[in-house]
Amino acid sequence: MKLDKSDFSEWYNAITKEAGLCDLRYGIKGFVVFMPWSVMTMNRMFGMMEREVERTGHVPALFPALIPEHYFMKEEDHVEGFVPEVFWVTQAGNNPLEEKYGMRPTSETAMYSMYALWIHGHTDLPFKLYQRCQVWRYETKATKPFIRSREFYWIEAHNCFATREDAMNQVREDMGMTENVIHQQYCIPFLFFKRPQWDKFAGAENTFAADTLMPDGRTLQLPSTHMLGQNFSRAFGIKFTDEDGEEKHVWQTCYGPAISRIYAALISIHGDDKGLVLPFRLAPVQVVIVPIFRDETRDMVLKECRKLKESLSEDFAVKIDDSNNTPGYKFNYWEMKGVPVRLEVGPRDIEKNEAVLVRRDTGEKASARTEELKGKILEAAESMRQNLKKKADEWFSTKTSLAKDMDGLEKEIEQNGFVRVPFCSDGLEAKECADALKEKHHANVRGSLFGSDEKPEGEKCVACGKDATIYLYVARQY
Amino acid sequence: MKLDKSDFSEWYNAITKEAGLCDLRYGIKGFVVFMPWSVMTMNRMFGMMEREVERTGHVPALFPALIPEHYFMKEEDHVEGFVPEVFWVTQAGNNPLEEKYGMRPTSETAMYSMYALWIHGHTDLPFKLYQRCQVWRYETKATKPFIRSREFYWIEAHNCFATREDAMNQVREDMGMTENVIHQQYCIPFLFFKRPQWDKFAGAENTFAADTLMPDGRTLQLPSTHMLGQNFSRAFGIKFTDEDGEEKHVWQTCYGPAISRIYAALISIHGDDKGLVLPFRLAPVQVVIVPIFRDETRDMVLKECRKLKESLSEDFAVKIDDSNNTPGYKFNYWEMKGVPVRLEVGPRDIEKNEAVLVRRDTGEKASARTEELKGKILEAAESMRQNLKKKADEWFSTKTSLAKDMDGLEKEIEQNGFVRVPFCSDGLEAKECADALKEKHHANVRGSLFGSDEKPEGEKCVACGKDATIYLYVARQY
Repeated sequence: MKLDKSDFSEWYNAITKEAGLCDLRYGIKGFVVFMPWSVMTMNRMFGMMEREVERTGHVPALFPALIPEHYFMKEEDHVEGFVPEVFWVTQAGNNPLEEKYGMRPTSETAMYSMYALWIHGHTDLPFKLYQRCQVWRYETKATKPFIRSREFYWIEAHNCFATREDAMNQVREDMGMTENVIHQQYCIPFLFFKRPQWDKFAGAENTFAADTLMPDGRTLQLPSTHMLGQNFSRAFGIKFTDEDGEEKHVWQTCYGPAISRIYAALISIHGDDKGLVLPFRLAPVQVVIVPIFRDETRDMVLKECRKLKESLSEDFAVKIDDSNNTPGYKFNYWEMKGVPVRLEVGPRDIEKNEAVLVRRDTGEKASARTEELKGKILEAAESMRQNLKKKADEWFSTKTSLAKDMDGLEKEIEQNGFVRVPFCSDGLEAKECADALKEKHHANVRGSLFGSDEKPEGEKCVACGKDATIYLYVARQY
Repeated sequence: MKLDKSDFSEWYNAITKEAGLCDLRYGIKGFVVFMPWSVMTMNRMFGMMEREVERTGHVPALFPALIPEHYFMKEEDHVEGFVPEVFWVTQAGNNPLEEKYGMRPTSETAMYSMYALWIHGHTDLPFKLYQRCQVWRYETKATKPFIRSREFYWIEAHNCFATREDAMNQVREDMGMTENVIHQQYCIPFLFFKRPQWDKFAGAENTFAADTLMPDGRTLQLPSTHMLGQNFSRAFGIKFTDEDGEEKHVWQTCYGPAISRIYAALISIHGDDKGLVLPFRLAPVQVVIVPIFRDETRDMVLKECRKLKESLSEDFAVKIDDSNNTPGYKFNYWEMKGVPVRLEVGPRDIEKNEAVLVRRDTGEKASARTEELKGKILEAAESMRQNLKKKADEWFSTKTSLAKDMDGLEKEIEQNGFVRVPFCSDGLEAKECADALKEKHHANVRGSLFGSDEKPEGEKCVACGKDATIYLYVARQY
């Protein structure tokens, strides 16, 4: 199996199949089977993200997967945005249901109906709760495994606060969690954008989303955090008595890291022509031991490998490949699977009480004494994390260019990545300008860079030519 | 809030509400919201069970929650058993679907359609795979939170083997996992029964189920493991080429610990008049520190408590209750929540560099020096595990009685628990006898004790009076 990442689309299709990440042959369009090798990594990704949301004071709950239609219909913009994507249950056994139930495409309406029963006074705030679950959306765009499917796995955190300021601080905390986990641990770079008004979450005041770039230069949305304002609390009647004795509606935020989608970014950004490259802490097998032997040394070598495995298994996920394949085959196979550390153990190594340690990211080889292996593996793990992050960051940092007019945009967008352009506005009145970019260049306005307040001076909107008031980032997107 | 476990049904309703385990006010009948205190324990229960199924060689996967109707219809008995319980999706957005999709009530038909594509040769076997997920069943019986709801959370393991013998060994391994986790760690006693033919899993050759007893003497089913034989492999075409070159159908088993249901047994069996009693390893908060102070010692005591928390947090889930409630209120509250260890810390304890350690199960108090606390807590944790198990086992072991005729059964079944009775058969021909017991005594035949081969000699079936061939266990059930 030859992999070639310069044709990313082909590479992606090949690796998801070859590495056993998913099976597309399930009997419902847009639904895939997630296979063990991806599930084991996604479970580790979930674990890290759950620890982070718990560290910041969220508690876990589990809400029903079905949402009664009358819950769904309470917030007008939300209805309009999500109802076209809902799978509806209309029948139970042989009986038609009196009210139909939607399979949650997201859980605002399930949760907030209950929040209204739970929250009464200012001492109930801040109220921070999350669930780990799957959601279903009847996507009409073409599906692609992990990137866009009709069923995906995520964490959704839904918080309530006494003031707008507290809610905005939560938005910043959400961005911090994204940095701590997705950048620092998954080694995935991103920019946080404030989405334009025509592309925000249905029912939100504002949406802030982390966008990364796939190797083909198209952008992929990672977690988004939404400032919901009081839209939902008014629709669902989530009120509290404030310290001043007045009854007020809570301010809300929600945050949704879609782990199965972030997994797509993980494998795409770090992978290479040999296959997957998994960060050490996310690898289902962290250390693979490949015994090197001839017939006459086979038993001795395997015995030593088993001893080695036992001594390392307390700290790492270790596997011995004792299959009948050749060492070369095994090297290729486990490289393709993205296992971060390979240990080669042959009779000579055993004699010297050593093993050869090979890093997946750089291919570097070094002998290490058995008693030092644990330390060397930990070192390699941390070094690989830093290396993956650095490599991804460096590439990502070169992928933003500038354009001042449509011709410039046309040229830059072909190089792929983000193109920063002067724009008339990010309000609803500028949607036509955005539509023009989409039609002409297949380019989507992703929003303004969060935290940047640079204003265009004397520049014109790339689309309509009116005075520009803001810089927006444009990209082709998944 | 007064709890009285002698009225178990009342106690159960009160504790699930009072301890914040679930909320029944969600807008769909039979669907509940699982609240943080139960979810945190269920997550720990899941973690232990997942480690156990992985230890025995199962790998995780995730199959779609929706099953196309034509998958569902492939195994005749399965269809008949499950179709009346299925929630059906018939509409997506505003469009009716061409084929309707069932929300999985269990995943045989989703998985085995894929297994047929994956399994080819004898080297693919044994094939052992599990998923952690939720399932939905349109129950017509009355629902009760955790015990029976229309949505519940479980692990389902689905395995394929080359021979019947290998499959039966898996059934025994499933029983071993049940023992290792549910008895040894959750401290829940049970008996494994072979279900009578009229009460086996739809599509199985035989069902083996672990039944425990709730405090009111009614039985609750814990995991079951099913010998599926070749029923599904024939229906789904799961074939392999054996070593002898012949194409054969695989032998299958499946195993399903329903964690949310087992949670009901956990809280019911160990709880007492003060509230929950949680095994240490399953408690969301393992150690609660209650500071004891007056106004003038408040700051000093709280500071020492925070230091103590920090030193213990590396090993345990620790919380300080620094609320404004009285110590007495806090003691009651955390006892009700089932926190295994309470540390009381006042000025005198601090002076002596000590804390008072109180066990939730026995209420025993003992002072311990701060530097010894970690060891003392670990000791208490293990001692509580053993004590909970012993107490539950002892009670459980007294709850099986004998009856030789209907009068005897009537008397014994009123004492509750299991009643062992001679029976004409456990085959389909004896279903009428079972129905008679159900009608007359509200008693259900749970099956024959697995591993016991004691045969009745010269005894008569309690129901029909014909010669008895087998001892069966009868109980009132949830």
